[in-house]
Amino acid sequence: MSRYLDLATTLGSRIEQGLHAAGDRLPSVRTLSLEYGVSLTTVQQAYRWLEMSGLVEARPRSGWYVPAARRAPELPQMGKPNLRPTDVTDWGQVQDLLDLEREGETVQLGRGMPDVDTPTLRPLQAALAREGRHAGIASLHYNDIQGVPALREQLARLAADAGYRATPDALIITTGCQEALSCAVRVLCAPGDIVAIASPSYHGMMQILKEAGVQVFEIPCDPLQGISLEALELALERWPVKAIQVIPNANNPLGYTMPQHRRLGLIRLAQRFDVPIIEDDIYGDLAYGWPRPPALKALDEDGRVLLCSSFSKTLAPGLRVGWIAPGRYFDKVLRMKYTNSGPTAPLPQIAVAEFLRKGHYPTHLRRMRRQYQRQRDIMTEWIRRYFPEGTRVSQPRGGFTLWVELPELFDTHTLDPMLRDSGIVIAHGDIFSAAGKYRNCMRLSHACAFDARTEWAVRRIGEAARALLDPAAMERLRA
Amino acid sequence: MSRYLDLATTLGSRIEQGLHAAGDRLPSVRTLSLEYGVSLTTVQQAYRWLEMSGLVEARPRSGWYVPAARRAPELPQMGKPNLRPTDVTDWGQVQDLLDLEREGETVQLGRGMPDVDTPTLRPLQAALAREGRHAGIASLHYNDIQGVPALREQLARLAADAGYRATPDALIITTGCQEALSCAVRVLCAPGDIVAIASPSYHGMMQILKEAGVQVFEIPCDPLQGISLEALELALERWPVKAIQVIPNANNPLGYTMPQHRRLGLIRLAQRFDVPIIEDDIYGDLAYGWPRPPALKALDEDGRVLLCSSFSKTLAPGLRVGWIAPGRYFDKVLRMKYTNSGPTAPLPQIAVAEFLRKGHYPTHLRRMRRQYQRQRDIMTEWIRRYFPEGTRVSQPRGGFTLWVELPELFDTHTLDPMLRDSGIVIAHGDIFSAAGKYRNCMRLSHACAFDARTEWAVRRIGEAARALLDPAAMERLRA
Repeated sequence: MSRYLDLATTLGSRIEQGLHAAGDRLPSVRTLSLEYGVSLTTVQQAYRWLEMSGLVEARPRSGWYVPAARRAPELPQMGKPNLRPTDVTDWGQVQDLLDLEREGETVQLGRGMPDVDTPTLRPLQAALAREGRHAGIASLHYNDIQGVPALREQLARLAADAGYRATPDALIITTGCQEALSCAVRVLCAPGDIVAIASPSYHGMMQILKEAGVQVFEIPCDPLQGISLEALELALERWPVKAIQVIPNANNPLGYTMPQHRRLGLIRLAQRFDVPIIEDDIYGDLAYGWPRPPALKALDEDGRVLLCSSFSKTLAPGLRVGWIAPGRYFDKVLRMKYTNSGPTAPLPQIAVAEFLRKGHYPTHLRRMRRQYQRQRDIMTEWIRRYFPEGTRVSQPRGGFTLWVELPELFDTHTLDPMLRDSGIVIAHGDIFSAAGKYRNCMRLSHACAFDARTEWAVRRIGEAARALLDPAAMERLRA
Repeated sequence: MSRYLDLATTLGSRIEQGLHAAGDRLPSVRTLSLEYGVSLTTVQQAYRWLEMSGLVEARPRSGWYVPAARRAPELPQMGKPNLRPTDVTDWGQVQDLLDLEREGETVQLGRGMPDVDTPTLRPLQAALAREGRHAGIASLHYNDIQGVPALREQLARLAADAGYRATPDALIITTGCQEALSCAVRVLCAPGDIVAIASPSYHGMMQILKEAGVQVFEIPCDPLQGISLEALELALERWPVKAIQVIPNANNPLGYTMPQHRRLGLIRLAQRFDVPIIEDDIYGDLAYGWPRPPALKALDEDGRVLLCSSFSKTLAPGLRVGWIAPGRYFDKVLRMKYTNSGPTAPLPQIAVAEFLRKGHYPTHLRRMRRQYQRQRDIMTEWIRRYFPEGTRVSQPRGGFTLWVELPELFDTHTLDPMLRDSGIVIAHGDIFSAAGKYRNCMRLSHACAFDARTEWAVRRIGEAARALLDPAAMERLRA
């Protein structure tokens, strides 16, 4: 592990243990450099890394601080631990969400769709057109089940940027991250097995687990630090868990980036109980800081982490180009991929490989990170302004979704008639839980460039929620 | 059912029952027209349909005949029935075949790859280039899990050509036929369940069943008529079969097109035992006759047939565009498709839809059917000439693969060193069986335009097989 990560681990533990109080100024870069015998750059890297996971904040011309008491709106509360594994409940709602995606005239705040109308994607479109013309025949052949070699070479470079080592031969291209996750689950689990999953989590994963006949043990998450290691340890002690599933970077839906000492703790638990980890890194390249936080797989010593990702959030979901770095499960995953859908369509792979090779990817990411971070702040402000008193909002460190928690007794499904009438789509909280928790929560996407209708829609949701919470206001609205 | 199919059923049963002997001239079109009170066209359609399944043959200016005693080379023998379901054995070999596909410098007789270097595919390349340029943004969005609507509209028309009714809403686009088959199996079966499958059969299906933990009951096939209904009935009586899997049109690997009375028998058995049927129709549009034989699904009265297909054999496998008409299992299959890989890449779908809409498909099929049929005859002749005495060869009614059966004790794997040295790839027979049968068989593809190396390769295989069967010749070869 690099030195800055060592230092970040030490400092992070100290802050978590309360050795530095909220609002405290932290030791200067120079002090730490002398204290630990490392370079100034190393200390700066460590601080930036801690900043990404929300443990410190920079004040211009003053230094690094423990964040002051949390500002309004407050963070979502940590969920309650489960007592036992549960079956995944609902598919109907996910289907509704997918059906709504088809309709064009809505204000779409529900789906995890990036902004694809950005000029930095133009070289990708050009590559698609060029390859459609020139590589026509090549792209019509069956291809390598593992995926186009030129793309795997580029992915090996991205792996290095994410701190893990993967040769092109150790990677398998999939039809989106969904197929990567699906193969991982089915390689590791049989029907009736139990998976421990950071909760709330990606609704598509819930449905994969449901189809695989797997039971889910939901582990609560801190909105800034991720999965509770204490709850996870208890689950691993009590139940024969076959896999742990986490989204450690720019988490969907909570937005956290797990701090280093928690990652180490997670890996150690997985080693101690000999359980593999399915890491979903799909938003990793969209963490707002730079360089991007390392993948959890960077800490993997014995091939137990199956990293799943895709370009669906960073470039465009319609490419259907994902990948998996399956570690010691390579052979089984390759076979599963073959039976699952055969090879992935080569044409989009070739186009993406060209886009990466020509160096367009960093430029594009830089732009998108800025856009998503800016819009996160704007939408947070709208929520503060229009939503009921006591509404809590996540503070994402990357990606383009906000997790909004309304008062405990509120049911977001009571908004459904208004949403239908107004043509607004949100993602209800309960699809992010196997057991149908989080009915008082919703996930709002802030990816696409805002227009007047975006603020109108957020306001409309907020006012409707207020009205539902306040019978008198409701009367007025009806009148 | 149309009248010509009624008539074909009656005539087919008569011929099978021996009421017309081999070599006999059959009643004239006029006679039958009067006898059954149907039009001349109806009788002609019935005869053409019987010809497709090999039950009759036309002699120019003379009429319709029961084929004379089978000509050399003889047809492959019917396999022996299994006594019990078996687990699927081998994956390693399939992987070898896939690995060999990657190498460019081989003579490829092993894979089910169509000829994609044909001028009738140029409009498809043009469509890919055009859509890559114009539909860029649209194709970058997530799309309908069910698939691009414009393509489903075209597929509904193809369904009508194949004799079954499917509205665009009743079809789901998949990432190749492989994903369609995979979803069908996983919707119908849990680990430990039993599937009855026409044997020999597509090796990719074997691996899907293996991954699903399903046991396989292999039902022997007549090389011209397909699955043995007697053996199937016995299996259904004795075992709790969860699904029947067949390839009724231009079968892979045997090439038969099931005659109508057998189809009816199959559907009745499925109804009696209330078992769904997974129909693989991937080669259906490549049956040599015209119009194409109807899909088995055309006889489906209660939505129990899940028809799986793709453009991988008719257009190009690299498109990865397949579909499923899942009948009464629609909802379950759609959910499975969602968890399996999310939506299928839209760009190739849009391009194929345009190719179909503009009417290029029939022209292309006409050309390919002629090419594949011509090359079937040439390769059959090479096998007759170069292979050992007693070699049996299938008489395909469509598609582009020949099934070659060597004397019973021969093991095609003894050819492996020679094949490796010569850079020739074949598909060994045992990958087409769950239980590793057919070690004395191989499947040879005759899709791509032949060159001098093609004949050389067939000759090389034949001579090596002869040498292995004749110890004296082997000595001479070694000297």
